[in-house]
Amino acid sequence: VTSPVASGLPSKTDKAFLSILDGRQLKTPPIWLMRQAGRYLPEYRELRATAKNFLDFCYSPALAAEATLQPIRRFGFDAAILFSDILVIPDAFGQTVTFEAGEGPRLNPLTSAEDIERLPELSLDRLSAVFETIDRVKPQLPPQTAFIGFCGAPWTVASYMIAGRGTPDQAPARLFAYRNPAAFQLLINKLVDASIGYLSEQIRVGVEAVQIFDSWAGILPPSEFQRWSLEPIARIISGVHARHPEARIIAFPRGATTHLPEFIRQTGAQAIGLDTAVDPNWAVKAIPEQVVVQGHLDPLALLAGGRAQSEAVGALLTAYRGRRHIFNLGHGILPETPIDHVAALVEQVRSFEG
Amino acid sequence: VTSPVASGLPSKTDKAFLSILDGRQLKTPPIWLMRQAGRYLPEYRELRATAKNFLDFCYSPALAAEATLQPIRRFGFDAAILFSDILVIPDAFGQTVTFEAGEGPRLNPLTSAEDIERLPELSLDRLSAVFETIDRVKPQLPPQTAFIGFCGAPWTVASYMIAGRGTPDQAPARLFAYRNPAAFQLLINKLVDASIGYLSEQIRVGVEAVQIFDSWAGILPPSEFQRWSLEPIARIISGVHARHPEARIIAFPRGATTHLPEFIRQTGAQAIGLDTAVDPNWAVKAIPEQVVVQGHLDPLALLAGGRAQSEAVGALLTAYRGRRHIFNLGHGILPETPIDHVAALVEQVRSFEG
Repeated sequence: VTSPVASGLPSKTDKAFLSILDGRQLKTPPIWLMRQAGRYLPEYRELRATAKNFLDFCYSPALAAEATLQPIRRFGFDAAILFSDILVIPDAFGQTVTFEAGEGPRLNPLTSAEDIERLPELSLDRLSAVFETIDRVKPQLPPQTAFIGFCGAPWTVASYMIAGRGTPDQAPARLFAYRNPAAFQLLINKLVDASIGYLSEQIRVGVEAVQIFDSWAGILPPSEFQRWSLEPIARIISGVHARHPEARIIAFPRGATTHLPEFIRQTGAQAIGLDTAVDPNWAVKAIPEQVVVQGHLDPLALLAGGRAQSEAVGALLTAYRGRRHIFNLGHGILPETPIDHVAALVEQVRSFEG
Repeated sequence: VTSPVASGLPSKTDKAFLSILDGRQLKTPPIWLMRQAGRYLPEYRELRATAKNFLDFCYSPALAAEATLQPIRRFGFDAAILFSDILVIPDAFGQTVTFEAGEGPRLNPLTSAEDIERLPELSLDRLSAVFETIDRVKPQLPPQTAFIGFCGAPWTVASYMIAGRGTPDQAPARLFAYRNPAAFQLLINKLVDASIGYLSEQIRVGVEAVQIFDSWAGILPPSEFQRWSLEPIARIISGVHARHPEARIIAFPRGATTHLPEFIRQTGAQAIGLDTAVDPNWAVKAIPEQVVVQGHLDPLALLAGGRAQSEAVGALLTAYRGRRHIFNLGHGILPETPIDHVAALVEQVRSFEG
């Protein structure tokens, strides 16, 4: 399916997604999509209906494994991503987490330094269902398909823990951090430690790469970005590498734009997810050549389909010609996206020979 | 109040805000705040209660003039900004616009190319109340206070006209533009012409500078940014300059970040508003020295107050030392902001002698 290797290191794997992370250059970028296991798939909606509560669904290894595999069966993406949610971490810390249909997550918010101090140390036992899902998925993946684990970045997870929900600009957590920097730092520290343990265990059980999602990084002013997004992610990357020196880690500090060169320098990230608004012509100059670029088609272009989609896909493929590039969206696929638009996307990317 | 001129052209005005736009360098940056006439002021809340409907309030010259002047009386800002709303333009096009308390604007959305074709040419007569407000404010301003007019940029205004409301990412308009690029271009063209006429008339009646607010620019992928944000603003700037060659124009393409150097080059903008997330250390390098930089304190830092505020203010003042800088927020002031935080901000900025 994937074009022959154009250049680079000797092959340690037949999986295009992994070999590009390992330093090889491919003519045809591997492709997967954020939220590829999700509501745009009719088979997912059917499966999802078998469990009442979203977290119950995530914690049912049989269901979560099936959801992970569905998009691979349908589209043959180059990587499967563990079906789970970034809010399993607050849940594992004992914070009440629920998902209201059509409303998004609801948590009992942390409102004081005491609330944060009271959080127990994270026990990985509470996440055993996630590791069991990984265990179940692994033998069912086609040989050419890589397996990605993930977690939310500390800033993004903390912003939900403080606000108790998603908000247009995560103002509650930003305000809390201005008013209680020491308490917020403690929360971030707890999340850094939890994330190192959680990702390391995912890798030990069998994922072949991990992605750190900092969906709310872009809303932070520069000094807050440094303190709450960049530094915690740097510590996670270094903590995971201390346990798994060969670990492949993709950082996705969404909206980081002009901070990206410094982010890459300070975190040592070897692969970076870019969002919809990034200009690829800027990125090819600003991001060091040895760093893998992942992204970043506008999910709305994929929803629109037709000429808007094919032109946007073509522009990205062309812009990253000669770069190590993993094709993806700039944000999660939208539930309303027609299946045949996804099929057309995969076909266009697979027929590209940069 | 403002420090002596450090360098630059001979003075044509005693107004610090204008002289900095005219090319002079001041040791102390002039200051005003986006949404400075608004709900954080108790006197505004009292005044606002005298009119039921928000647009009626905007269209009452006596009330709108008073709202414009209130923050000048209280804080002595270097510029007053016309009290109005960017959605007077859709209203003047005959689209129904209402404001639900606590809910934001509601418009009867444009859903088809026909809806757009049917929009009449804008008649400035429908905006006569706005011009009468300008007329009333002018003689009441202190001699050192400049007067700013404004409009919403075509992309931002169009995004409300299509969605019928604010949304987290203005997806309806982005999707409409992908699916109906010709119809969306027609809407943008109508808004460009309307904005040129509207701003030119504001200047003729008496404002001394205008700002173009593109609050939703940052959500656009690069080619859409070029087509829907940059090009329309470039046409407005050139159209206004054709009628008023000396017009002072500030462009505020919020979230444009890495597009800013190209935006400045192609639009010829002489002053640029920056948003909260911009790194000033990046901006001083990326933005040409002859361009005035306006911004960009995090409104949440001003809400938080105390050390978080004073450190953030100090960091901005220091970063733009030696640059032509107008102090402002990176986004509108929040209604919950304590009055004394604003007073402390003004004091800190006024006591800075770069």
